[in-house]
Amino acid sequence: MRTSIATVCLSGSLRQKMRAAAAAGFDGIEVFEQDLVVAPETPEHIRDYAAELGLTLDLYQPFRDAEGTEEQLFQDTLRRVEEKFRLMNRLGMDLMLIPSNAGTATVDDDAVVASQLARMADLAADYGIRLAYEALAWGRFVNDFEHSWRLVEAADRENLGVCLDTFHILSRQWSTETVPDIPGDKVFFVQLADAPLMSLDVLSWSRHFRVFPGEGGFDLVDFMIKLLAGGYSGPLSLEIFNDSFRQTRVHRTAVDALRSLIWLQDRTARTLEASTGTTTNVSRATARIGELTRLPGAVVPQGITWAEVRGQETEQVEMLLSHLGFNHRGRHTSKPVQLWEHGDARVVINEEPRAQDAPSMASLGFEVQHDAAAAAHASALMVPEVPRVTREGEQPFPAYLAPDGTEIFFCPPQSAGGDRWLTEFSWPDHLDVAARRRPDPETDHDLPLITGIDHVNLAQPKHHYPESVLFYRAALGLTVQPSQDVPGPTGLVSSQVVRNESGSVRLPLNVAPDLGSEPEVEHIAFACTDVVRLARRAQASGLRFLPIPHNYYEDLRARFDLPDAKIEELSSLNLLYDRDDRGEFLHFYTQTVGSLFFEVVQRLDGYGGYGAPNAPVRMASQYTHSLLSR
Amino acid sequence: MRTSIATVCLSGSLRQKMRAAAAAGFDGIEVFEQDLVVAPETPEHIRDYAAELGLTLDLYQPFRDAEGTEEQLFQDTLRRVEEKFRLMNRLGMDLMLIPSNAGTATVDDDAVVASQLARMADLAADYGIRLAYEALAWGRFVNDFEHSWRLVEAADRENLGVCLDTFHILSRQWSTETVPDIPGDKVFFVQLADAPLMSLDVLSWSRHFRVFPGEGGFDLVDFMIKLLAGGYSGPLSLEIFNDSFRQTRVHRTAVDALRSLIWLQDRTARTLEASTGTTTNVSRATARIGELTRLPGAVVPQGITWAEVRGQETEQVEMLLSHLGFNHRGRHTSKPVQLWEHGDARVVINEEPRAQDAPSMASLGFEVQHDAAAAAHASALMVPEVPRVTREGEQPFPAYLAPDGTEIFFCPPQSAGGDRWLTEFSWPDHLDVAARRRPDPETDHDLPLITGIDHVNLAQPKHHYPESVLFYRAALGLTVQPSQDVPGPTGLVSSQVVRNESGSVRLPLNVAPDLGSEPEVEHIAFACTDVVRLARRAQASGLRFLPIPHNYYEDLRARFDLPDAKIEELSSLNLLYDRDDRGEFLHFYTQTVGSLFFEVVQRLDGYGGYGAPNAPVRMASQYTHSLLSR
Repeated sequence: MRTSIATVCLSGSLRQKMRAAAAAGFDGIEVFEQDLVVAPETPEHIRDYAAELGLTLDLYQPFRDAEGTEEQLFQDTLRRVEEKFRLMNRLGMDLMLIPSNAGTATVDDDAVVASQLARMADLAADYGIRLAYEALAWGRFVNDFEHSWRLVEAADRENLGVCLDTFHILSRQWSTETVPDIPGDKVFFVQLADAPLMSLDVLSWSRHFRVFPGEGGFDLVDFMIKLLAGGYSGPLSLEIFNDSFRQTRVHRTAVDALRSLIWLQDRTARTLEASTGTTTNVSRATARIGELTRLPGAVVPQGITWAEVRGQETEQVEMLLSHLGFNHRGRHTSKPVQLWEHGDARVVINEEPRAQDAPSMASLGFEVQHDAAAAAHASALMVPEVPRVTREGEQPFPAYLAPDGTEIFFCPPQSAGGDRWLTEFSWPDHLDVAARRRPDPETDHDLPLITGIDHVNLAQPKHHYPESVLFYRAALGLTVQPSQDVPGPTGLVSSQVVRNESGSVRLPLNVAPDLGSEPEVEHIAFACTDVVRLARRAQASGLRFLPIPHNYYEDLRARFDLPDAKIEELSSLNLLYDRDDRGEFLHFYTQTVGSLFFEVVQRLDGYGGYGAPNAPVRMASQYTHSLLSR
Repeated sequence: MRTSIATVCLSGSLRQKMRAAAAAGFDGIEVFEQDLVVAPETPEHIRDYAAELGLTLDLYQPFRDAEGTEEQLFQDTLRRVEEKFRLMNRLGMDLMLIPSNAGTATVDDDAVVASQLARMADLAADYGIRLAYEALAWGRFVNDFEHSWRLVEAADRENLGVCLDTFHILSRQWSTETVPDIPGDKVFFVQLADAPLMSLDVLSWSRHFRVFPGEGGFDLVDFMIKLLAGGYSGPLSLEIFNDSFRQTRVHRTAVDALRSLIWLQDRTARTLEASTGTTTNVSRATARIGELTRLPGAVVPQGITWAEVRGQETEQVEMLLSHLGFNHRGRHTSKPVQLWEHGDARVVINEEPRAQDAPSMASLGFEVQHDAAAAAHASALMVPEVPRVTREGEQPFPAYLAPDGTEIFFCPPQSAGGDRWLTEFSWPDHLDVAARRRPDPETDHDLPLITGIDHVNLAQPKHHYPESVLFYRAALGLTVQPSQDVPGPTGLVSSQVVRNESGSVRLPLNVAPDLGSEPEVEHIAFACTDVVRLARRAQASGLRFLPIPHNYYEDLRARFDLPDAKIEELSSLNLLYDRDDRGEFLHFYTQTVGSLFFEVVQRLDGYGGYGAPNAPVRMASQYTHSLLSR
C-alpha cells in the first residue's frame, strides 16, 4: 500500500523533512501547516520540490476549530478555510484534515454540526478539495470515530469523508468492531500511530509519547485487518508527535518510520495467512493480501552463537574468562581475534587496531535457520549493513548494525555448516577441531558448568530507544516484554527484555539516565548448571567478584526466610538470590573491565526473570567500586 | 521546625547522601531501606556516622505489604518485620514507616486490619519501636489518610500513629479539612512533597515527578497551617522521587531540598501574618508561628536595572544596539565594561579577559527596595554568592548565582542612590550625568522609543529546572505561570514565565530539548512605544532583522482577518503580530550574535503574553539562518 508521513514527525526545516521522507522511500507526505508557515519557500516552490523528489502531497493538516460553533463564528471559519483552500490550490493539494473541534465548539447538536460540515464541503468543492473529518480523542463534543462517521453520513457530500487515526481510537479504547462498516471510499485517510500503554490524559499522551507502529503497545495488526476488510485503499500514513523524534536526525527517523509501515504490512499479511478462523473480516482482508508490502522470510534466531568483545587492552577480560573456566581455543588465521569457549558459550575477543583501548561489547552472532533469508529480511527493513572484509576461504556472515551500535551477525545452524568459522582459528596442537566432542555425562567428571549464553544486556541510547524496540521486534522477530525501572545510585535505569519464545535468545535492553557521561556498562550472562560449584572454583582461582554487601544478605533472610547456612554460603561467594512463582535464581557478577562485565546465572525450576530486585545492589556496588578505583 | 530528608531523594552512595544532607543543614534523615541494603557499611557504622555528622535517623522506611492479609501470610509478615526491628535497634532508630498494603492485601475488613496493626505495634513495643501508618494513594484497600487514621484509632496502641505524606493526599484531591482533627501527637511523621499538576496515574506521577515544596503546583502552605493547627511538632521531612534529583549532584540537590523547607516555613508564617480571617485553624497555627524558620525580609524586585552581556567579541552586539537607537554612554573607570542606554533600558557589555569570545547573557540587575535585605534573604536561602571585586568608591551590589548560571544583582532604587554606579562610567564630554534629563514630551521630537526591558528569556538546564523555579519564587519572590510547549525544528522547548505582579519584571524560562549540544540562545526584549517607527528607523540604519517568511503573513491574514495594508506593513518590516482577549502585540527580532539576540516588543491595550504562537516561526528562521551561516 502507499505510504505517507506527516512532516511534524521529523526534525529540521520543511525541505530537510521532505528530502528525508523521499530518501527513506515514502510515497508521499502530509503537510503540517506549521511547517509550511515557518518555511521560507513559497507554496509553489514546495509543490515543485515535492514533484522533483517524487513525493505526493497527500494531506494538508490540520484545520482546527472548524465545526460546532455559533453561526457568527462559523462565518469567520468559512473565511479562514477559504484562504487555506486557495493555499492548497497553490500547493496542488486536494485533501484537507478537519479534526473535531476541541477549542471553540459550543453547539452540541449533530444536525448543526453536519450542516456546517456540509457547507464547508460545498465551499471546498469549488476549489476541487476534499475534506477528511477526524474525531480527536479530546474533541469537545465529537471524540469517537463512529460519531464522526455518523456526522459525515448525515452531511452526505461526495467530497466529505472521515480520517481514522489509531491513536484517537485506541487511546480511548473505543471498540474497532465497526471500522469495516465504514465504506472504504469514505475513509479518506488513515494515520497509524502506536504508543506505550499509559494512564496519562490523552492530550499529553498524544503530544509527547506517540511512537511508530511496532514501537508501542497498540494492536495495530488487528486494526489493519479491519481497515482492509472495510475496503480502504488510500495511503498508510504516520502522524507521530514524539519528543525524541523531534530531536533525532531526520534521515534516521524517516527510515525508522518507513520500517514500521513495512513491518506492519508484513505482520498483517502473516497474521492473515496464519488465521484459522473464517470471519468475514479475515476473508475480506485476505482477498487483499497482495496489496501489502511483504518481507522476504521470517527470522527468529534460535540461539546466540557468540558474543564479541572489542578493545586494545583485553588482558583483564581474558583473565576473567579464564577464571570462569573458559578455554582459549585459538587465534584467527588472518585477524587479531581470539576465541574463548566454555561449553556452548563462545566469546570472541577482537583486538583490532582501530578499537578503543577499553574493552566493550561489539557484536552478537545469532543462529538462524537461513542466514541469507535473514539478511534479505534485514535489508528489506533498511537496516544498515556492517561493511566487512571476508577473505578467500573464510566463512562470510551477513552483518547488520542495530540502533544501539551492536553488530548483529546471522549464522546458519551447525547442521548447515554454521561452525565452519571455527576452523578459521588455529588451535593449540593438542586439540583437534574435528574431534571436539561433547563430554559424556556418564564418564566425564569435568562437565562444562557453563552451557551457553543466558542473556546479553545491551545499553540503549535514550532517544533511539523506540527505534531499537522496533529493530529487535522486526529485524530479529523477538517479542518485547513489559519494562521495569531499576533505581541506581546515579539515576533510574529503565530495563525491557526482548526474547525469542524458547528463551534461547534473551536481550535485556537498558536505557540509562541521560546525565551519564561515561559509556554505559553492558554485560554477558552465562547460563550455568551449578553456580555454587563454579563460584567456588572461580574463587579458588582468584576471580575478582563484584563484592555484595552483607546488608543484602540480612535483607534476603528477612525477605525469603532462608536458613542461616544458605545465607552463609551465598554471602561467602558473593552470590545473589531471587525467587519467582516458578523457581529460584542464583547468580554472581564479575568486576567491570572497560564498559563490560560478566554474570553467571543458574535458573532453577523455570525461573523466568533476571534477578531484577538484585540489580540495584549490583549498580550500587559497581558505583562504590568505581569510586574507589579512581 | 526540625527538618529531615529521605535518602531516596539524593544520588550516590548512602554515605554521600548522609554527608550532603548534613552539609546542607538538615537535622535528620529518613533511611530508605534499599539504600541501606546496598551499602557496604554495617548498620552500626551508619549509626555512628550519623552521630558524627550530627544527623538524627528519623524514620526507617518502608515496610511494605504489611496489613490486610490472611493470617498465614501475616505470620510471615510478623517474622519479616521482627528482623527489621532488630536491624533498627542496631541502627539506634525508633520509628518505622508502614505504607498501606498495595501488593498483597486481600482482606478488606477494617477490624482485621486494625487488629493486625495492633499486633505489629505490640511486637514493635518489645523493641522500643513506634510505627507510622501511611495511606498510599494507590493502596489496595486503604488509600486516604482519614481511613488510615480511623484504623490507627481503632488499633489504639500508644506506639502506633499515622504518617501524612502530602503527595498521597493532594494527588488524590482528598479534602484536608480533617487534618487538624488528628491529635498532633498521633501524627508520628510528615512528608512534604510537591508535584506538577498532571493527570497521570498516581503511581507513575509519584515515582517520577515529585518535586520539592515550591517547585510544583500543590498548596502546601494551606497544608502546613492545618498541620500546625492540629499540633504536629515532629520534623518536616522530604520524600521526593524524581528522575532528575536521582541524577543531579548530591550536594546541590540537598541544598535545593533544604531551601524548599525554609521557604515553605517562611511562606506559611507570612500567610498567617497576612490572614485577616480568624478561623480556628489560623488562630491555633498563628500561636505556633515562633516555631517556624523565618527569612529576613521579603524581596520582590520592582524592575530590571540592567542586563549584562559578556564576551570578547562584542562588536556585533554594539552594532545591533546602535541600530536599535541605543547610545553608548561610557566606559567603566576600572573595568573593561561599557554601558549602552535607550530610555530606561540599560545594557552593560562586559569584555573581561576571562570571558568566552561569543557574547552571552551574564547578569541581571534587579531594583529592590532594600538591597541588604534582599541579600540577607538570598543568603538565608543558601543561594551561592558571586565573588566580586568592588574597588574603593565603587557602588557595591550584592550578587548571587541563579541555578541557570545567571548572576543576579540587587540594586537599591534610584531614590536611594541606586544609580550611583552610573557615575563609574566616564561619559563622553558633551554629556553630564547629573544633567541627564527625562525628555519633555511636549517639546522633544526625539522621545526614546524604548522605555525599558520588557522581559528577558533565560535558558534553563533541564535537570535543574525545578531548582530554578524554586529559586525565582523563593529568592526573588516572583510568581510562576503555567508552562507552554513550543515546537522548534530541533525539538520541543518548554517555556514558563516567572514575573512580579506589575509585570515590570518578567522572565520566560526556557527548557530546551536535551540533545542540543550548542549553547541555548537567550534574549533581551525591549519595551517599545512605537515598534513600527523603531523598526523603520532600524531598517534604514541597516539593522540585521531576523527574516520572517512570507507564508507567516499569509497565515496571519487567514487567522486574524487583518487588512492587506497592515499585512504589507508587517511583512516589509519583519514584524510579528499576536492578539489576546485584551489587546495586540507587535514585535521583531534581531539576528543572533553568540548565544544572544534582541527583541523589541509593543504591548497594546494590556496584551499579557509573549507572542508564543510566533515562537516557532522565530526558531525555524533562526535554525535556517544558522544553517546558512555555516
